[in-house]
Amino acid sequence: MDTHTFFFHLLLILIISRLLAELAARFHMPTVIGELAAGVLLGPSLLGWIEPTKTIQLLAEVGIILLLFKVGIETDIRRLINAGRQSLIVALGGFLMPLVSGFALGYWVFGLSGLVSLFIGGTLTATSIGITIRVLSDLNRQHEKEGEIVLGAAVIDDVMGVVLLAILYEFSVSGGVSVMNISKVMTFILLFFILAPVAAKLISVLIRRFDDYSSAPGLIPIMIISLVLFFAWLAHVVGAPELLGGFAAGLALSRRFFLPFGVALHSDRKFAGRIEVQMNPIVYIFSPIFFVTVGLSLSLREIDWSSPFIWTFALSFFFVAVLAKFAGAMLIQAHFLQRVAIGLAMVPRGEVGLIFAELGRSTGIFNVEVYAGMVIVITLTTLLSPFALKWFYAHHCEHLKNPGGDCEPNSPVI
Amino acid sequence: MDTHTFFFHLLLILIISRLLAELAARFHMPTVIGELAAGVLLGPSLLGWIEPTKTIQLLAEVGIILLLFKVGIETDIRRLINAGRQSLIVALGGFLMPLVSGFALGYWVFGLSGLVSLFIGGTLTATSIGITIRVLSDLNRQHEKEGEIVLGAAVIDDVMGVVLLAILYEFSVSGGVSVMNISKVMTFILLFFILAPVAAKLISVLIRRFDDYSSAPGLIPIMIISLVLFFAWLAHVVGAPELLGGFAAGLALSRRFFLPFGVALHSDRKFAGRIEVQMNPIVYIFSPIFFVTVGLSLSLREIDWSSPFIWTFALSFFFVAVLAKFAGAMLIQAHFLQRVAIGLAMVPRGEVGLIFAELGRSTGIFNVEVYAGMVIVITLTTLLSPFALKWFYAHHCEHLKNPGGDCEPNSPVI
Repeated sequence: MDTHTFFFHLLLILIISRLLAELAARFHMPTVIGELAAGVLLGPSLLGWIEPTKTIQLLAEVGIILLLFKVGIETDIRRLINAGRQSLIVALGGFLMPLVSGFALGYWVFGLSGLVSLFIGGTLTATSIGITIRVLSDLNRQHEKEGEIVLGAAVIDDVMGVVLLAILYEFSVSGGVSVMNISKVMTFILLFFILAPVAAKLISVLIRRFDDYSSAPGLIPIMIISLVLFFAWLAHVVGAPELLGGFAAGLALSRRFFLPFGVALHSDRKFAGRIEVQMNPIVYIFSPIFFVTVGLSLSLREIDWSSPFIWTFALSFFFVAVLAKFAGAMLIQAHFLQRVAIGLAMVPRGEVGLIFAELGRSTGIFNVEVYAGMVIVITLTTLLSPFALKWFYAHHCEHLKNPGGDCEPNSPVI
Repeated sequence: MDTHTFFFHLLLILIISRLLAELAARFHMPTVIGELAAGVLLGPSLLGWIEPTKTIQLLAEVGIILLLFKVGIETDIRRLINAGRQSLIVALGGFLMPLVSGFALGYWVFGLSGLVSLFIGGTLTATSIGITIRVLSDLNRQHEKEGEIVLGAAVIDDVMGVVLLAILYEFSVSGGVSVMNISKVMTFILLFFILAPVAAKLISVLIRRFDDYSSAPGLIPIMIISLVLFFAWLAHVVGAPELLGGFAAGLALSRRFFLPFGVALHSDRKFAGRIEVQMNPIVYIFSPIFFVTVGLSLSLREIDWSSPFIWTFALSFFFVAVLAKFAGAMLIQAHFLQRVAIGLAMVPRGEVGLIFAELGRSTGIFNVEVYAGMVIVITLTTLLSPFALKWFYAHHCEHLKNPGGDCEPNSPVI
């Protein structure tokens, strides 16, 4: 790609996503819808001006790890741990229900093979952590109780998704699965989750000290981005999703992070504030690229819209996809409305679902029709649930708000 | 390239360039040397860990246009125009002298063909605007009189370089040159230079107004980056180097920009301050990628270091390359020491010289030995002149400083 073409594509991505996001806000829609719509508009689905090239995809990946970094830095780790048990239930329920019901619907109702049905079930387990968190943040609900449960559940869901993807891939290639490998990966991921924030915190203390001696400006953004990239890379090395590295680094740098040994480390609020001020513009530039790229990747033009089978197929799985995530949320003990909100927030499949569907297509397990059906399911869950969640909060805010909470959403945070 | 490999390469680029830059500063060397050295170290010349892939190169291009944007925003346009006549002389002298003497040395002394000698002359005309400006900024001299002359000369030099490159390319392909085409391109570039800052200023006023109504944060970095990308793209469309689009956008947003009509536009210092605070972290992240990529592109391993011819050839052209730029600077009326400083600042060929040499190689005009010789010349001019300039200022500061100027360079600005 020529430099000027790249500049022009980047320009279109930034400016159109911003315009549509502002427009969405004017019509009281979640702004993330504007960014996803920009991708659908500019991409192969409609205008075909921009292909999701390798460079754009890599920038989008930087966008999602930086977004998770920002989510991490704003998270109160104690409250996240407190919500842990309920998050685990929501994640497990919202993982097993779609897997089982997706498989059942594919195998018994549509008469697909076991492997195809398994991949469909896998595609339906996905939760788009980026879109879920962004919608809650657009609604200013990310620090409420259900926001914390959803954040924890989305993180756990992402780990389970990666493990399942590895299992399905191994199974489709070799026909069998090594329990040894899986438990090794699970152990590594668990260790990563316990050790990474501690290590990131220690490194950040070094950066803090080094900052006083540095002879050139720009130390903070460069070192923090390096830290985020390092933990994203490390997450991949241990077998975890890269974006969880960004989340771990963010958690470590949050104002409310505490180390079991070393109380002195957690009180440097001024430094944490400087990190946020300097990192925010970088996050604002990269994160829309991620949401636009999700929109770019939805190749809606390839779908034969006139086929009745596609519609029956897609709508059946869409209902299963929504109901199964709700079923997961219903397993916890909370106010009914909170459980509905959590269920709605877990619905968007987004980029994680697309990765499953893409693996299904590239390995030849999904034929054109099944793939098209899955793309429709992913599109519907991704685009409809932000609307549903916003509508739900607007109509049930009085029953959901915490003491001191505000019913009118403030300006969104991310 | 895998996502995690890209993350790891980006991490290495950011962290190693920062470490070597800090190390350079400790030993009183220009910090840009650290970033260039990081590229040489990580790239094909030494360790071979990182190739300058397309994605890295595109990010480097974003880095250089953002750097020029930052230079533009810190520039006083009135002082730049005042220095204009002298800049023009330095640029013309520093362009024609290397072209003629490089051609002469190649054609008459080394007995090369006319076309090869012409390409060698072309390679020697280059001035690396990025390295030149960065070194002056490392020394905190960019706002002194000679800094402004050099800035103007480097900009004019870059325009002439692009036009020459187009001529040489046309000549090497078709054997002739259309004067019509050249004058058309020159007219477009001139028009761009007059109109772009005015247009950018008008757009920035719109952004300023829109900022009050925006419903999501991050408007300023997204709109300013979009503005920079737009003018970089527009510069390419009219035939000018892309980085000049970044410079034009920066000039328009500088605190001291004035419009012939509309005095009211130039007084919004608070907005200009907000732009700088939010854009700086983004510039700090991208600009080292540019300097590292220049280092990555110097493929010093391919050179046969034991060949005496290479050394005779390279050192002869190196002396011509240095002396010819000095000769250009000697044409203006200024203190002798100022003229030496200007001459030294114009010496680095950097990425612009590499583009010429690469065109020579890819069209088959340069054989391996001539190409290797040119790479040595470019490397020497790029790496030695920052040292020479720093040493020169340290020893002659008393005679060079403006009233109120400071002999000890402060912390560098970029």
